[in-house]
Amino acid sequence: MKKNLKLGIFGFGCVGQGLYHVLNETHGLKAEIKRICVKDRSKTRPLPQELFTYDRDEILLDPEIDVVVELIDDADAAFQILKSALQNGKHVVSANKKMIAENLDAIHTLQQQYDRSVLYEGSVCGAIPILRNLEEYYDNDLLTGIEGIFNGSTNYILTKVFEEKKSYSEALKQAQELGFAESNPALDVQAFDPKFKLVIAIAHAFGVVVKPEDIINIGIDRIEDVDLAFARKNGYTVKLIARAIKSEGKIFALVAPQFIENENPLSAIRLEYNAVQVQGAFSDKQLFVGKGAGSYPTGSAVLSDISALTYGYRYEYKKIYQLPVNTFSDDWTVEVFVRFPHGVSVSIADFENFKSGYAANGQNYMVGTVHYSKLKEWAQNEKIGIILSPNASFNAARVSKKATEFSYALA
Amino acid sequence: MKKNLKLGIFGFGCVGQGLYHVLNETHGLKAEIKRICVKDRSKTRPLPQELFTYDRDEILLDPEIDVVVELIDDADAAFQILKSALQNGKHVVSANKKMIAENLDAIHTLQQQYDRSVLYEGSVCGAIPILRNLEEYYDNDLLTGIEGIFNGSTNYILTKVFEEKKSYSEALKQAQELGFAESNPALDVQAFDPKFKLVIAIAHAFGVVVKPEDIINIGIDRIEDVDLAFARKNGYTVKLIARAIKSEGKIFALVAPQFIENENPLSAIRLEYNAVQVQGAFSDKQLFVGKGAGSYPTGSAVLSDISALTYGYRYEYKKIYQLPVNTFSDDWTVEVFVRFPHGVSVSIADFENFKSGYAANGQNYMVGTVHYSKLKEWAQNEKIGIILSPNASFNAARVSKKATEFSYALA
Repeated sequence: MKKNLKLGIFGFGCVGQGLYHVLNETHGLKAEIKRICVKDRSKTRPLPQELFTYDRDEILLDPEIDVVVELIDDADAAFQILKSALQNGKHVVSANKKMIAENLDAIHTLQQQYDRSVLYEGSVCGAIPILRNLEEYYDNDLLTGIEGIFNGSTNYILTKVFEEKKSYSEALKQAQELGFAESNPALDVQAFDPKFKLVIAIAHAFGVVVKPEDIINIGIDRIEDVDLAFARKNGYTVKLIARAIKSEGKIFALVAPQFIENENPLSAIRLEYNAVQVQGAFSDKQLFVGKGAGSYPTGSAVLSDISALTYGYRYEYKKIYQLPVNTFSDDWTVEVFVRFPHGVSVSIADFENFKSGYAANGQNYMVGTVHYSKLKEWAQNEKIGIILSPNASFNAARVSKKATEFSYALA
Repeated sequence: MKKNLKLGIFGFGCVGQGLYHVLNETHGLKAEIKRICVKDRSKTRPLPQELFTYDRDEILLDPEIDVVVELIDDADAAFQILKSALQNGKHVVSANKKMIAENLDAIHTLQQQYDRSVLYEGSVCGAIPILRNLEEYYDNDLLTGIEGIFNGSTNYILTKVFEEKKSYSEALKQAQELGFAESNPALDVQAFDPKFKLVIAIAHAFGVVVKPEDIINIGIDRIEDVDLAFARKNGYTVKLIARAIKSEGKIFALVAPQFIENENPLSAIRLEYNAVQVQGAFSDKQLFVGKGAGSYPTGSAVLSDISALTYGYRYEYKKIYQLPVNTFSDDWTVEVFVRFPHGVSVSIADFENFKSGYAANGQNYMVGTVHYSKLKEWAQNEKIGIILSPNASFNAARVSKKATEFSYALA
């Protein structure tokens, strides 16, 4: 049943080189690299020149190549490569979360149309095998929620800022030097990266394909020293949390910084580690922790996808076909801390349920429950700082007891 | 490809009833219970009488039944049911760790002989999908170690003893009342239960089939108040750790209590939760946390196996067939704290590397590195208390740097 796979790789950056090394030291995997397509002709490469090409068709039109491994930065070019690979009868492995999240519907359809497989475990939380588990293991469990720390570089920054009392800019610089932060840090610190991952996870957890623009992402770039002081005073830490909860067939999702209590297992996830917590009606809460990025962890996830292709694995997107169908909803509320300077219009009436407020040093602070629509408005105003409350869970009118318990500690 | 499965269930205790409820509330799974075989005719059952039988052949010889779900206590009877089910062309799902661990070789062979599948995810750490992940996801990763808290009831007891300063017997009684501890607590507190699970995990992680009697299990029943006081004074907690490490093709394994530092992520695993830490050369350390026992978590794992059978899944025992072949070894050393009364013969010369010792109140204490053979001898003497050092990792002469780092904290 196992076949010998010939691979064509696009991109030979950090993940590509990691994959090469992992492949090289692995026993028993029937796969070999036939060609690597790169862009920059001036770079010296650590491998024999004949392995490389600058012409994508030397991979895409090579009938000997079974699998295209797409590891480039540019999401639009990546999607073109994916389409062309499928059209030419090749399977695709990718770790490009932006490309996958933005084209999930099309990728699902294309796989059926060309009867080929697209696997992308490396796109969500690196070495944590979350997609395969959501797809296979939680197949028939009644999943009620998924939440976690989906971005390693912002978690690294937040850890350094809290533990070593570094400034935000120092910590960012250090994260970039260590290779945890993208060359364009906005994707990370403005929380686009974890949002793309959440979009992909939602499809495999709940069978709902959401557009990235329909999920609010609030970054850590708006956190100020006063927020950190508040957290410290209350024994909290701050984590950037991606979360989706299901209640009565409706899916609620949000990516935002949150004050996290010590008892919450996510408070213990340090540095560049990622964590995913899955809540099932019967399996109860489960936590997966691992390295979310980096050449070897991601290379290892990509390798696992290649290995799965040797026995014909493909995502079945089972939840999409299960009844009753879940739908995405923006009718929910959540408890937040907001901070805004004088002159910015935030008022008590904006809250569904106002808890407290005070003003000091030209800043105003308010705590209470807000509706999605108001949060979306505030998210677009950079002057407003927004951090979710420690017990922030989605308080949709119809939310079940299980769902509201989700953001609490493991035990 | 999906087929409608008819199930025959043996046993209707805690897990069986959990499975029944999980099945009932699950959408999309094509499986139904045809018959349940139970032993006790006097018990009133919560389901219609016609579902039950007292004759095992009404399930084993029913050609309509595709899957036998074995959920009884008695390991020998369970293995007879498993064999007979396979001989009669049925797949088997089981959560019986003792039966699986003691018969792994035979179960592997029988599956090939009768071309049927035996799945047992529920037998190792309940709802944590560890076997499927070891089998599928870490297929070609270079696994170097697996360790964790594999027994919920002893972890419950240790948590209560440490956090609430309860006595050992009080904590055990409470665990039994809550249903975490087996009716025969010796299996848990003497660490046989986690050893059975480790045996199963080793087969899927490293492709080595070990006999349970070849692994030393040291229980928590020998812990005394002086040990707890020592732990508290040093900021440690005590956890019962199951561990297997690979180094240069040799597998070292042990189940024993260990002093755990705060920085170790396993220190945060409380109450009845289980945790499995997997160390790969490329994926780095990964931690899985979840409920290890109980009717719903185990029922959910059993359900996931049934679901996997609807698409023809079976364990491939891939590592067994991969080259180079790993072998089980008893040539290793480990750092331990030993406590023994006057008159018991433990001497400095017993240690490969003696660190320190003192005597007080009729008790002697020694810390140092001992060889497997000496540890095995001490394990058979109930007067000797044995707890692994916080940095206990297997110090086989040829152990690699990666392996020795394994027992340290996540980051």
